[in-house]
Amino acid sequence: MHRVKVRVVEDALDANNTIARANRDDFDRHDVTVVNLMSAPGAGKTTLLERVLDGFGDVRAGVLEGDVQGSYDADRLASLHVPVTQLNTDPGFGGECHLDANMVRSALPALPLEKIDLLVIENVGNLVCPAEFRVGEDARIMVSSVTEGEDKPLKYPLMFRTCELVLVNKIDLLPHLDFDMDAFLHNLDAVHPDVPRMLVSARTGEGVEAWRDWLTGLPARREVAV
Amino acid sequence: MHRVKVRVVEDALDANNTIARANRDDFDRHDVTVVNLMSAPGAGKTTLLERVLDGFGDVRAGVLEGDVQGSYDADRLASLHVPVTQLNTDPGFGGECHLDANMVRSALPALPLEKIDLLVIENVGNLVCPAEFRVGEDARIMVSSVTEGEDKPLKYPLMFRTCELVLVNKIDLLPHLDFDMDAFLHNLDAVHPDVPRMLVSARTGEGVEAWRDWLTGLPARREVAV
Repeated sequence: MHRVKVRVVEDALDANNTIARANRDDFDRHDVTVVNLMSAPGAGKTTLLERVLDGFGDVRAGVLEGDVQGSYDADRLASLHVPVTQLNTDPGFGGECHLDANMVRSALPALPLEKIDLLVIENVGNLVCPAEFRVGEDARIMVSSVTEGEDKPLKYPLMFRTCELVLVNKIDLLPHLDFDMDAFLHNLDAVHPDVPRMLVSARTGEGVEAWRDWLTGLPARREVAV
Repeated sequence: MHRVKVRVVEDALDANNTIARANRDDFDRHDVTVVNLMSAPGAGKTTLLERVLDGFGDVRAGVLEGDVQGSYDADRLASLHVPVTQLNTDPGFGGECHLDANMVRSALPALPLEKIDLLVIENVGNLVCPAEFRVGEDARIMVSSVTEGEDKPLKYPLMFRTCELVLVNKIDLLPHLDFDMDAFLHNLDAVHPDVPRMLVSARTGEGVEAWRDWLTGLPARREVAV
Protein backbone atom coordinates (compact mmCIF):
# COMPACT_ATOMS: atom_id res chain seq x y z
CA MET A 1 0.00 0.00 0.00
CA HIS A 2 2.72 2.41 1.00
CA ARG A 3 4.79 1.56 -2.08
CA VAL A 4 1.89 2.27 -4.39
CA LYS A 5 1.39 5.68 -2.83
CA VAL A 6 5.02 6.67 -3.25
CA ARG A 7 5.02 5.60 -6.86
CA VAL A 8 1.95 7.67 -7.66
CA VAL A 9 3.38 10.75 -6.01
CA GLU A 10 6.65 10.48 -7.90
CA ASP A 11 4.72 10.25 -11.12
CA ALA A 12 2.71 13.34 -10.24
CA LEU A 13 5.85 15.35 -9.48
CA ASP A 14 7.53 14.03 -12.62
CA ALA A 15 4.57 15.15 -14.72
CA ASN A 16 4.70 18.52 -13.00
CA ASN A 17 8.37 18.94 -13.87
CA THR A 18 7.68 18.07 -17.50
CA ILE A 19 5.01 20.75 -17.72
CA ALA A 20 7.20 23.23 -15.83
CA ARG A 21 9.88 22.78 -18.48
CA ALA A 22 7.32 23.43 -21.21
CA ASN A 23 6.26 26.63 -19.39
CA ARG A 24 9.89 27.64 -19.12
CA ASP A 25 10.40 27.15 -22.84
CA ASP A 26 7.45 29.41 -23.55
CA PHE A 27 8.71 32.06 -21.15
CA ASP A 28 12.18 31.85 -22.72
CA ARG A 29 10.75 32.20 -26.20
CA HIS A 30 9.16 35.49 -25.11
CA ASP A 31 12.27 36.53 -23.16
CA VAL A 32 10.26 36.75 -19.93
CA THR A 33 11.98 36.23 -16.58
CA VAL A 34 9.72 34.56 -14.03
CA VAL A 35 9.69 34.82 -10.25
CA ASN A 36 7.68 32.50 -7.98
CA LEU A 37 6.73 34.47 -4.84
CA MET A 38 5.81 32.30 -1.86
CA SER A 39 4.95 32.71 1.85
CA ALA A 40 2.52 31.80 4.60
CA PRO A 41 -0.91 33.48 4.51
CA GLY A 42 -0.70 37.12 5.56
CA ALA A 43 3.10 37.45 5.38
CA GLY A 44 2.72 40.47 3.13
CA LYS A 45 3.34 39.27 -0.44
CA THR A 46 0.72 41.52 -2.02
CA THR A 47 1.64 44.61 -0.01
CA LEU A 48 5.31 44.09 -0.89
CA LEU A 49 4.35 43.78 -4.56
CA GLU A 50 2.33 46.99 -4.38
CA ARG A 51 5.40 48.70 -2.96
CA VAL A 52 8.02 47.25 -5.29
CA LEU A 53 6.06 47.61 -8.54
CA ASP A 54 5.35 51.27 -7.90
CA GLY A 55 8.24 52.96 -9.69
CA PHE A 56 9.55 49.82 -11.32
CA GLY A 57 11.37 51.70 -14.10
CA ASP A 58 12.17 50.31 -17.54
CA VAL A 59 11.55 46.65 -16.77
CA ARG A 60 7.96 45.89 -17.73
CA ALA A 61 6.36 43.74 -15.04
CA GLY A 62 3.27 41.53 -15.00
CA VAL A 63 1.64 39.59 -12.16
CA LEU A 64 -0.09 36.21 -12.05
CA GLU A 65 -2.16 36.02 -8.87
CA GLY A 66 -2.76 32.59 -7.39
CA ASP A 67 -5.59 32.30 -4.86
CA VAL A 68 -7.94 29.60 -3.67
CA GLN A 69 -10.81 31.88 -4.58
CA GLY A 70 -11.66 35.54 -5.02
CA SER A 71 -9.64 38.31 -6.67
CA TYR A 72 -8.91 40.53 -3.66
CA ASP A 73 -5.15 40.69 -4.30
CA ALA A 74 -5.53 41.20 -8.03
CA ASP A 75 -7.96 44.03 -7.36
CA ARG A 76 -5.43 45.68 -5.04
CA LEU A 77 -2.73 45.51 -7.71
CA ALA A 78 -4.98 46.79 -10.49
CA SER A 79 -4.30 50.42 -9.56
CA LEU A 80 -0.60 49.97 -10.41
CA HIS A 81 -1.28 49.73 -14.15
CA VAL A 82 0.63 46.50 -14.59
CA PRO A 83 -1.12 43.55 -16.26
CA VAL A 84 -2.57 41.29 -13.56
CA THR A 85 -4.03 37.86 -14.31
CA GLN A 86 -6.07 35.97 -11.70
CA LEU A 87 -5.74 32.22 -11.30
CA ASN A 88 -8.14 30.52 -8.86
CA THR A 89 -7.43 27.01 -7.62
CA ASP A 90 -10.88 26.24 -6.22
CA PRO A 91 -12.11 24.09 -9.13
CA GLY A 92 -9.56 21.55 -7.79
CA PHE A 93 -9.54 19.54 -4.63
CA GLY A 94 -11.76 21.83 -2.49
CA GLY A 95 -9.29 24.57 -3.36
CA GLU A 96 -5.73 23.52 -4.15
CA CYS A 97 -3.25 24.79 -1.57
CA HIS A 98 -0.57 25.60 -4.16
CA LEU A 99 0.00 26.42 -7.80
CA ASP A 100 1.38 23.66 -9.99
CA ALA A 101 2.89 23.83 -13.47
CA ASN A 102 -0.32 22.77 -15.18
CA MET A 103 -2.36 25.51 -13.50
CA VAL A 104 0.20 28.09 -14.62
CA ARG A 105 0.14 26.55 -18.11
CA SER A 106 -3.63 26.99 -18.25
CA ALA A 107 -3.09 30.70 -17.57
CA LEU A 108 -0.47 31.21 -20.33
CA PRO A 109 -2.98 32.21 -23.05
CA ALA A 110 -4.23 34.99 -20.74
CA LEU A 111 -0.75 36.39 -20.04
CA PRO A 112 0.53 39.23 -22.24
CA LEU A 113 4.00 37.65 -22.53
CA GLU A 114 5.03 39.80 -25.48
CA LYS A 115 4.46 42.96 -23.44
CA ILE A 116 6.37 42.11 -20.24
CA ASP A 117 9.96 41.39 -19.21
CA LEU A 118 9.34 40.06 -15.73
CA LEU A 119 6.42 37.96 -14.51
CA VAL A 120 5.83 37.65 -10.77
CA ILE A 121 3.70 34.65 -9.86
CA GLU A 122 2.16 35.20 -6.43
CA ASN A 123 1.58 31.69 -5.11
CA VAL A 124 -1.13 30.53 -2.68
CA GLY A 125 -0.21 31.39 0.94
CA ASN A 126 1.22 28.11 2.28
CA LEU A 127 4.65 27.02 3.54
CA VAL A 128 4.42 23.35 2.53
CA CYS A 129 3.16 22.30 -0.91
CA PRO A 130 4.17 25.30 -3.08
CA ALA A 131 7.80 24.31 -2.41
CA GLU A 132 7.14 20.94 -4.08
CA PHE A 133 5.93 22.27 -7.41
CA ARG A 134 8.13 24.10 -9.89
CA VAL A 135 6.01 26.12 -12.29
CA GLY A 136 8.70 27.16 -14.81
CA GLU A 137 10.22 29.99 -12.78
CA ASP A 138 13.78 31.39 -12.95
CA ALA A 139 13.89 32.30 -9.28
CA ARG A 140 11.94 31.68 -6.10
CA ILE A 141 11.47 34.32 -3.46
CA MET A 142 10.17 33.46 -0.02
CA VAL A 143 8.63 36.02 2.30
CA SER A 144 8.83 35.28 6.02
CA SER A 145 7.23 37.71 8.43
CA VAL A 146 8.89 38.38 11.79
CA THR A 147 5.46 37.94 13.41
CA GLU A 148 5.62 34.23 12.49
CA GLY A 149 8.49 33.44 14.86
CA GLU A 150 12.13 32.37 14.62
CA ASP A 151 11.42 28.64 14.20
CA LYS A 152 9.85 28.69 10.73
CA PRO A 153 13.00 27.68 8.74
CA LEU A 154 13.31 24.59 10.94
CA LYS A 155 9.63 23.70 10.68
CA TYR A 156 9.27 24.27 6.93
CA PRO A 157 12.81 23.56 5.68
CA LEU A 158 11.99 22.66 2.06
CA MET A 159 10.41 26.05 1.45
CA PHE A 160 13.40 27.93 2.83
CA ARG A 161 15.87 25.58 1.08
CA THR A 162 14.51 25.88 -2.45
CA CYS A 163 14.48 29.67 -2.79
CA GLU A 164 17.01 32.12 -4.21
CA LEU A 165 16.07 35.01 -1.91
CA VAL A 166 14.42 35.35 1.50
CA LEU A 167 12.58 38.56 2.36
CA VAL A 168 12.21 39.03 6.12
CA ASN A 169 9.14 41.26 6.26
CA LYS A 170 7.36 43.46 8.85
CA ILE A 171 10.59 44.58 10.51
CA ASP A 172 8.76 47.77 11.56
CA LEU A 173 7.09 45.56 14.21
CA LEU A 174 10.37 44.35 15.75
CA PRO A 175 10.24 46.78 18.71
CA HIS A 176 6.88 45.29 19.69
CA LEU A 177 7.78 41.59 19.36
CA ASP A 178 9.93 39.07 21.25
CA PHE A 179 11.40 38.06 17.88
CA ASP A 180 15.14 37.22 17.99
CA MET A 181 16.54 38.08 14.54
CA ASP A 182 19.89 36.40 15.23
CA ALA A 183 18.12 33.16 16.11
CA PHE A 184 15.99 33.38 12.95
CA LEU A 185 19.04 33.96 10.72
CA HIS A 186 20.86 31.15 12.49
CA ASN A 187 17.93 28.82 11.75
CA LEU A 188 17.81 30.05 8.16
CA ASP A 189 21.53 29.32 7.68
CA ALA A 190 21.01 25.88 9.21
CA VAL A 191 18.64 24.88 6.39
CA HIS A 192 20.00 27.08 3.56
CA PRO A 193 23.48 28.43 4.33
CA ASP A 194 24.20 31.88 2.92
CA VAL A 195 20.95 32.21 0.97
CA PRO A 196 20.60 35.92 0.09
CA ARG A 197 18.25 37.64 2.51
CA MET A 198 16.84 41.16 2.82
CA LEU A 199 15.15 42.75 5.81
CA VAL A 200 12.15 44.72 4.62
CA SER A 201 9.00 46.47 5.74
CA ALA A 202 6.12 46.59 3.29
CA ARG A 203 4.51 49.12 5.61
CA THR A 204 7.30 51.71 5.85
CA GLY A 205 9.04 50.81 2.59
CA GLU A 206 12.32 50.05 4.33
CA GLY A 207 14.49 47.70 2.28
CA VAL A 208 12.08 47.71 -0.67
CA GLU A 209 14.47 49.64 -2.94
CA ALA A 210 17.14 46.96 -2.51
CA TRP A 211 14.58 44.33 -3.42
CA ARG A 212 13.48 46.38 -6.46
CA ASP A 213 17.12 46.52 -7.62
CA TRP A 214 17.41 42.74 -7.17
CA LEU A 215 14.22 42.15 -9.18
CA THR A 216 14.88 44.61 -12.00
CA GLY A 217 18.42 43.24 -12.36
CA LEU A 218 17.15 39.68 -12.68
CA PRO A 219 16.50 39.66 -16.46
CA ALA A 220 20.06 40.88 -17.16
CA ARG A 221 21.61 38.41 -14.69
CA ARG A 222 19.58 35.61 -16.27
CA GLU A 223 20.84 36.65 -19.72
CA VAL A 224 24.41 36.23 -18.48
CA ALA A 225 23.60 32.87 -16.91
CA VAL A 226 22.01 31.61 -20.14
CA MET B 1 -9.17 13.70 -17.25
CA HIS B 2 -10.93 16.23 -15.04
CA ARG B 3 -13.75 13.80 -14.27
CA VAL B 4 -11.31 11.10 -13.22
CA LYS B 5 -9.53 13.50 -10.88
CA VAL B 6 -12.75 14.56 -9.15
CA ARG B 7 -13.81 10.96 -8.65
CA VAL B 8 -10.51 10.00 -7.01
CA VAL B 9 -10.66 12.98 -4.66
CA GLU B 10 -14.19 12.17 -3.58
CA ASP B 11 -13.10 8.64 -2.79
CA ALA B 12 -10.13 9.90 -0.76
CA LEU B 13 -12.35 12.22 1.29
CA ASP B 14 -14.92 9.47 1.74
CA ALA B 15 -12.21 7.11 3.05
CA ASN B 16 -11.00 9.88 5.35
CA ASN B 17 -14.49 10.35 6.78
CA THR B 18 -14.81 6.62 7.40
CA ILE B 19 -11.54 6.59 9.37
CA ALA B 20 -12.50 9.81 11.20
CA ARG B 21 -15.67 8.07 12.42
CA ALA B 22 -13.58 5.12 13.63
CA ASN B 23 -11.31 7.55 15.52
CA ARG B 24 -14.35 9.22 17.00
CA ASP B 25 -15.69 5.88 18.22
CA ASP B 26 -12.38 5.19 19.95
CA PHE B 27 -12.33 8.63 21.55
CA ASP B 28 -15.94 8.18 22.70
CA ARG B 29 -15.16 4.78 24.19
CA HIS B 30 -12.50 6.45 26.33
CA ASP B 31 -14.70 9.47 27.06
CA VAL B 32 -12.16 11.81 25.51
CA THR B 33 -13.28 15.12 23.98
CA VAL B 34 -11.17 16.12 20.99
CA VAL B 35 -10.35 19.56 19.62
CA ASN B 36 -8.72 20.17 16.23
CA LEU B 37 -6.65 23.40 16.47
CA MET B 38 -5.84 25.00 13.13
CA SER B 39 -4.21 28.18 11.80
CA ALA B 40 -1.68 29.59 9.36
CA PRO B 41 2.01 29.08 10.24
CA GLY B 42 3.08 31.38 13.05
CA ALA B 43 -0.41 32.46 14.15
CA GLY B 44 0.41 31.40 17.71
CA LYS B 45 -1.23 27.99 18.25
CA THR B 46 1.60 26.62 20.41
CA THR B 47 2.03 29.76 22.51
CA LEU B 48 -1.72 29.87 23.10
CA LEU B 49 -1.63 26.22 24.16
CA GLU B 50 1.25 26.92 26.56
CA ARG B 51 -0.85 29.69 28.09
CA VAL B 52 -4.16 27.88 28.28
CA LEU B 53 -2.85 24.54 29.57
CA ASP B 54 -1.00 26.21 32.40
CA GLY B 55 -3.54 26.07 35.22
CA PHE B 56 -6.02 23.88 33.39
CA GLY B 57 -7.66 22.61 36.55
CA ASP B 58 -9.49 19.30 36.91
CA VAL B 59 -9.84 18.51 33.23
CA ARG B 60 -6.89 16.32 32.23
CA ALA B 61 -5.50 17.48 28.89
CA GLY B 62 -3.25 15.83 26.32
CA VAL B 63 -1.77 17.18 23.10
CA LEU B 64 -1.13 15.59 19.72
CA GLU B 65 1.38 17.74 17.83
CA GLY B 66 1.22 17.66 14.04
CA ASP B 67 4.27 18.98 12.19
CA VAL B 68 5.89 18.38 8.83
CA GLN B 69 9.07 17.54 10.68
CA GLY B 70 10.87 18.22 13.96
CA SER B 71 9.46 18.32 17.48
CA TYR B 72 10.00 21.99 18.37
CA ASP B 73 6.43 22.59 19.50
CA ALA B 74 6.20 19.32 21.43
CA ASP B 75 9.45 20.21 23.20
CA ARG B 76 8.00 23.59 24.16
CA LEU B 77 4.91 21.96 25.65
CA ALA B 78 6.87 19.28 27.53
CA SER B 79 7.48 21.60 30.48
CA LEU B 80 3.73 21.77 31.14
CA HIS B 81 3.58 18.16 32.35
CA VAL B 82 0.76 17.19 30.04
CA PRO B 83 1.21 14.15 27.81
CA VAL B 84 2.42 15.31 24.39
CA THR B 85 2.62 13.00 21.37
CA GLN B 86 4.47 14.06 18.21
CA LEU B 87 3.15 13.18 14.77
CA ASN B 88 5.36 14.05 11.78
CA THR B 89 3.90 14.12 8.28
CA ASP B 90 7.16 14.07 6.33
CA PRO B 91 7.09 10.37 5.40
CA GLY B 92 4.21 11.39 3.11
CA PHE B 93 4.18 13.48 0.02
CA GLY B 94 7.36 15.55 0.66
CA GLY B 95 5.73 16.47 3.96
CA GLU B 96 1.95 16.47 4.05
CA CYS B 97 0.48 19.93 4.59
CA HIS B 98 -2.28 18.72 6.92
CA LEU B 99 -3.28 15.93 9.27
CA ASP B 100 -5.79 13.40 8.00
CA ALA B 101 -7.83 10.83 9.90
CA ASN B 102 -5.46 7.99 9.05
CA MET B 103 -2.42 9.84 10.40
CA VAL B 104 -4.27 10.52 13.65
CA ARG B 105 -5.37 6.87 13.70
CA SER B 106 -1.72 5.78 13.44
CA ALA B 107 -1.00 7.85 16.57
CA LEU B 108 -3.82 6.35 18.66
CA PRO B 109 -1.68 3.56 20.21
CA ALA B 110 0.74 6.21 21.46
CA LEU B 111 -1.98 8.35 23.08
CA PRO B 112 -2.78 7.80 26.79
CA LEU B 113 -6.53 8.00 26.17
CA GLU B 114 -7.44 6.44 29.52
CA LYS B 115 -5.58 9.21 31.35
CA ILE B 116 -7.01 12.30 29.64
CA ASP B 117 -10.37 14.01 29.27
CA LEU B 118 -9.51 16.45 26.50
CA LEU B 119 -7.17 15.92 23.57
CA VAL B 120 -5.99 18.97 21.62
CA ILE B 121 -4.70 18.09 18.15
CA GLU B 122 -2.45 20.88 16.90
CA ASN B 123 -2.69 20.65 13.12
CA VAL B 124 -0.02 21.61 10.57
CA GLY B 125 0.06 25.38 9.99
CA ASN B 126 -1.98 25.84 6.81
CA LEU B 127 -5.27 27.58 5.96
CA VAL B 128 -6.32 25.33 3.09
CA CYS B 129 -6.12 21.53 3.36
CA PRO B 130 -6.60 20.96 7.12
CA ALA B 131 -10.16 22.25 6.65
CA GLU B 132 -10.85 19.38 4.24
CA PHE B 133 -9.96 16.56 6.59
CA ARG B 134 -11.99 15.64 9.66
CA VAL B 135 -9.87 13.59 12.05
CA GLY B 136 -12.55 12.51 14.54
CA GLU B 137 -12.76 15.77 16.50
CA ASP B 138 -15.69 17.14 18.52
CA ALA B 139 -14.83 20.77 17.81
CA ARG B 140 -12.59 22.80 15.54
CA ILE B 141 -10.87 25.94 16.70
CA MET B 142 -9.25 28.31 14.24
CA VAL B 143 -6.60 30.82 15.26
CA SER B 144 -6.29 33.93 13.08
CA SER B 145 -3.62 36.46 13.93
CA VAL B 146 -4.33 40.16 13.43
CA THR B 147 -0.94 40.44 11.69
CA GLU B 148 -2.34 38.36 8.82
CA GLY B 149 -4.81 41.03 7.70
CA GLU B 150 -8.56 41.51 7.54
CA ASP B 151 -9.08 39.61 4.28
CA LYS B 152 -8.28 36.09 5.45
CA PRO B 153 -11.89 34.88 6.00
CA LEU B 154 -12.67 35.84 2.40
CA LYS B 155 -9.53 34.20 0.99
CA TYR B 156 -9.76 30.96 3.00
CA PRO B 157 -13.52 30.65 3.59
CA LEU B 158 -13.71 26.89 4.13
CA MET B 159 -11.34 27.06 7.09
CA PHE B 160 -13.36 29.83 8.78
CA ARG B 161 -16.67 28.18 7.89
CA THR B 162 -15.98 24.75 9.37
CA CYS B 163 -14.93 25.77 12.87
CA GLU B 164 -16.85 26.11 16.13
CA LEU B 165 -14.67 28.92 17.55
CA VAL B 166 -12.37 31.59 16.11
CA LEU B 167 -9.55 32.94 18.26
CA VAL B 168 -8.33 36.33 17.01
CA ASN B 169 -4.78 36.35 18.34
CA LYS B 170 -1.98 38.90 18.88
CA ILE B 171 -4.36 41.72 19.79
CA ASP B 172 -1.49 43.24 21.83
CA LEU B 173 -0.06 44.34 18.45
CA LEU B 174 -3.21 46.22 17.37
CA PRO B 175 -1.80 49.68 18.27
CA HIS B 176 1.10 49.03 15.88
CA LEU B 177 -0.90 47.69 12.92
CA ASP B 178 -3.27 49.10 10.31
CA PHE B 179 -5.60 46.19 11.09
CA ASP B 180 -9.33 47.08 11.01
CA MET B 181 -11.05 44.75 13.51
CA ASP B 182 -14.55 45.73 12.38
CA ALA B 183 -13.67 44.86 8.79
CA PHE B 184 -12.23 41.50 9.89
CA LEU B 185 -15.32 40.63 11.92
CA HIS B 186 -17.52 41.74 9.04
CA ASN B 187 -15.60 39.39 6.71
CA LEU B 188 -15.83 36.61 9.28
CA ASP B 189 -19.60 37.03 9.56
CA ALA B 190 -19.84 37.02 5.75
CA VAL B 191 -18.46 33.46 5.59
CA HIS B 192 -19.63 32.13 9.00
CA PRO B 193 -22.34 34.31 10.53
CA ASP B 194 -22.30 34.49 14.33
CA VAL B 195 -19.53 31.92 14.82
CA PRO B 196 -18.27 32.34 18.40
CA ARG B 197 -15.08 34.44 18.47
CA MET B 198 -12.67 35.51 21.20
CA LEU B 199 -10.07 38.25 21.03
CA VAL B 200 -6.89 37.01 22.69
CA SER B 201 -3.21 37.70 23.16
CA ALA B 202 -0.95 34.71 23.75
CA ARG B 203 1.76 37.19 24.72
CA THR B 204 -0.07 39.13 27.43
CA GLY B 205 -2.59 36.43 28.30
CA GLU B 206 -5.54 38.69 27.57
CA GLY B 207 -8.65 36.65 26.77
CA VAL B 208 -6.95 33.32 27.56
CA GLU B 209 -9.06 32.70 30.66
CA ALA B 210 -12.25 32.93 28.63
CA TRP B 211 -10.81 30.42 26.17
CA ARG B 212 -9.77 28.13 29.05
CA ASP B 213 -13.36 28.21 30.36
CA TRP B 214 -14.65 27.35 26.86
CA LEU B 215 -12.21 24.44 26.58
CA THR B 216 -12.65 22.99 30.06
CA GLY B 217 -16.44 23.22 29.68
CA LEU B 218 -16.36 21.30 26.40
CA PRO B 219 -16.47 17.73 27.86
CA ALA B 220 -19.58 18.61 29.91
CA ARG B 221 -21.30 20.37 26.99
CA ARG B 222 -20.52 17.37 24.78
CA GLU B 223 -22.07 15.06 27.39
CA VAL B 224 -25.31 17.05 27.19
CA ALA B 225 -25.24 16.99 23.39
CA VAL B 226 -24.75 13.22 23.32
